[in-house]
Amino acid sequence: MERIYIRDLKNKMDEEVVISGSVNVRRDHGKLIFIDFRDRTGMVQMVALPNHKEASEIANKIRPEWVLEIKGKVNKRPDNMVKEGELNGELEIEILEIKIISEAEEMPFDRETELNLDTYFDYMPLTLRTEEKRAVFKVQSIIVQAFRNFLISEEFIEVQSPKIIGADAEGGAGVFEIDYFDNKAYLATSPQFYKQIMVGVYERVFMTGNVFRAEKHNTTRHINEYTSLDFEMGFIEDHLDIIKMETKLLQFVVKELKEKCSKEFELLGAEIPEVIDEIPYMKLKEAQEVIKKEFGEDCVGEPDLEPQHERWLCEYAKKEFNSDFIFVTHYPVEKRPAYTYEDENDKGFTKSFDLLFRGVEITTGGQRIHNYDDLVKGFEKKGLDPKKFSFYLQAFKYGMPTHGGIGMGLERLTAKFLGIKNIKEATLFPREINRIDNLLNK
Amino acid sequence: MERIYIRDLKNKMDEEVVISGSVNVRRDHGKLIFIDFRDRTGMVQMVALPNHKEASEIANKIRPEWVLEIKGKVNKRPDNMVKEGELNGELEIEILEIKIISEAEEMPFDRETELNLDTYFDYMPLTLRTEEKRAVFKVQSIIVQAFRNFLISEEFIEVQSPKIIGADAEGGAGVFEIDYFDNKAYLATSPQFYKQIMVGVYERVFMTGNVFRAEKHNTTRHINEYTSLDFEMGFIEDHLDIIKMETKLLQFVVKELKEKCSKEFELLGAEIPEVIDEIPYMKLKEAQEVIKKEFGEDCVGEPDLEPQHERWLCEYAKKEFNSDFIFVTHYPVEKRPAYTYEDENDKGFTKSFDLLFRGVEITTGGQRIHNYDDLVKGFEKKGLDPKKFSFYLQAFKYGMPTHGGIGMGLERLTAKFLGIKNIKEATLFPREINRIDNLLNK
Repeated sequence: MERIYIRDLKNKMDEEVVISGSVNVRRDHGKLIFIDFRDRTGMVQMVALPNHKEASEIANKIRPEWVLEIKGKVNKRPDNMVKEGELNGELEIEILEIKIISEAEEMPFDRETELNLDTYFDYMPLTLRTEEKRAVFKVQSIIVQAFRNFLISEEFIEVQSPKIIGADAEGGAGVFEIDYFDNKAYLATSPQFYKQIMVGVYERVFMTGNVFRAEKHNTTRHINEYTSLDFEMGFIEDHLDIIKMETKLLQFVVKELKEKCSKEFELLGAEIPEVIDEIPYMKLKEAQEVIKKEFGEDCVGEPDLEPQHERWLCEYAKKEFNSDFIFVTHYPVEKRPAYTYEDENDKGFTKSFDLLFRGVEITTGGQRIHNYDDLVKGFEKKGLDPKKFSFYLQAFKYGMPTHGGIGMGLERLTAKFLGIKNIKEATLFPREINRIDNLLNK
Repeated sequence: MERIYIRDLKNKMDEEVVISGSVNVRRDHGKLIFIDFRDRTGMVQMVALPNHKEASEIANKIRPEWVLEIKGKVNKRPDNMVKEGELNGELEIEILEIKIISEAEEMPFDRETELNLDTYFDYMPLTLRTEEKRAVFKVQSIIVQAFRNFLISEEFIEVQSPKIIGADAEGGAGVFEIDYFDNKAYLATSPQFYKQIMVGVYERVFMTGNVFRAEKHNTTRHINEYTSLDFEMGFIEDHLDIIKMETKLLQFVVKELKEKCSKEFELLGAEIPEVIDEIPYMKLKEAQEVIKKEFGEDCVGEPDLEPQHERWLCEYAKKEFNSDFIFVTHYPVEKRPAYTYEDENDKGFTKSFDLLFRGVEITTGGQRIHNYDDLVKGFEKKGLDPKKFSFYLQAFKYGMPTHGGIGMGLERLTAKFLGIKNIKEATLFPREINRIDNLLNK
């Protein structure tokens, strides 16, 4: 008999079926044994009755996480046992035969226990097996594919960019060093240079790959390896074209989440945000004036925003524009990478932006320098040797359109969408200074 | 006036338009200057006439790769100049105004020159800017997204797996070592262990990420970093379920390529293969018998196939089954990784397979061991210490379904589809022992 999925049992009332999956919980009620049984489509209650002797004996010894193939009969539950609105709340499986696919050791902790984070990470192959965790990473998978599908619909081309690079691209953030045969190489902290090079080839490109940051701080906002969602587009007027594209992108992602993950958001007690057509944007200095006026702290003239400032601005955007998002533009030249485009009408400030969402920056983007000489000067101004960037600079030597783009971390975005406080809980197998799956200092 | 794309010019006959793009070629014909001008949607011929003095003067100094915004009039070509069947073959642009977005240095070589491979790589930001190269990586982008879309339609979940790992997963192929703060870490040679762990969570998972091989050989078949397409699924009968899923996957990829890339295949002189419903499969020893009988070479009993054997088998599959593909199964236990499932009815041989296509292996896959004790024994048999795999082994300690999957290299697949001989030409920015964009020994 062919396996059917647990979500489809309701169409098989009073029939015999075969289902396969894992034991969630076993409950002994005297002679009856109840088993909550799950597959990737849902959960069902099964019961082993003493009259099916062989099955009943096996049921007696199984434990959570045993993997079984069950032959059973789909029975209607007595009226007083029906659980309204729950998958299979109206039925249960009478177990006829049990085939053991895999046994499982006794759980190292109870399924209901609230685990501390280190234990959760140490046992991830097991601790990921909950409805909640499945929901988190299901949402993540929908976000990344929505990102791609939107950009493809806008005629962007996906590009595979290398992670092993010959020099630290941005000459800034900590990089991991690799032994590359008889040379030294590094892990890319961003696909930025390749994105730009590929704008010269396709005008519009995107990538969804890993990036690596050798940052020593161990916070709830940082991880040392993450998935970066990046796009870059040519022939723009200025950074506002990027802001427009990102707004449409976010609207599409949210639409997809509503269609495909409303159950998951509900389960996790999170709310899918609205993305209004005209997300407010303001210059850094205007934002600082707002903070001074609305929240009484004078940070006007500072080169960047503090975390508290970002939270305040989000609060303000919600109140003033009913927007969950707000763009802050025109960060000073000295705070942005060498390739950032300086506003000719606001010297010293760049056509760059951060996007703030629920109190945190989730995107960095902006217009880039497209003129070769300006870019060389940009490197020199930062004290970087343009010769070290000669491969990248070829794109500009041989003509580049005006262009810009954004990058955002998939894990941070997932966390913010779902209201998860620590980014590591929105990361499959997070890397941090003391951890690569297991604690390194053990 | 808003920019329009070059592919849409035919709808604007006799109108004034604005187009933006790059100069492909400039040809001086006495007082007339002809410019082949491209954007990401196509090419058009433009002409600068002496009566538009200012534009004509600028046209005189521009060179290939200059990036321009053009205001022009769409004119019908004289009948004897029409190029039938060519985009914009019936029209040309009379240049009215030229706005220079970026100048470009003189080309280091002629556009028509056949470049040697090192020069092509050294100048990739420039040399990728041809119709042929754009076609290659467009095809690649369609393959990778078709891979994802098919698996999503089969309810697989995409998973982001880490590239920094604590130990060499397969204890075999060369790995790159990283300085990870005060520890040593490595770059993943495959997402295999994470795929399997995630089968315990979702039953069906896939990933499309980079993997890294510190192999010193510099061949036309190998690169040191590539994009690996991987899927893994639970509750299978045996490896034939994986073969079936992969067959459907390839059929979908081919369907997508036909819909979206027939122009690119034509341009590159390549043929999109057919994927028949029942791709032939045979055991290694049967395949060796075929080689002996059909091609006269006795390799029966050898543990693996030589490249020439793979070519012969493909020839045989084409002739005998009219199939561009053939699966070879049951490689011996000692030639496959520790987690490979041994056939209980053919001891010493595994339920694993390679998929051969146009003379080369493009996939490795098979059923995996799901029983904890068997897996521990599998490691021990290979002389590996199971303790080093304790994180991964948790998945099995706490119960795993039967499962299996495949992995294939995106670049190799692209190359084989397109009849590209050297995999590096199907790789954006290939990494090899002496090259990370620029030659390392320079």
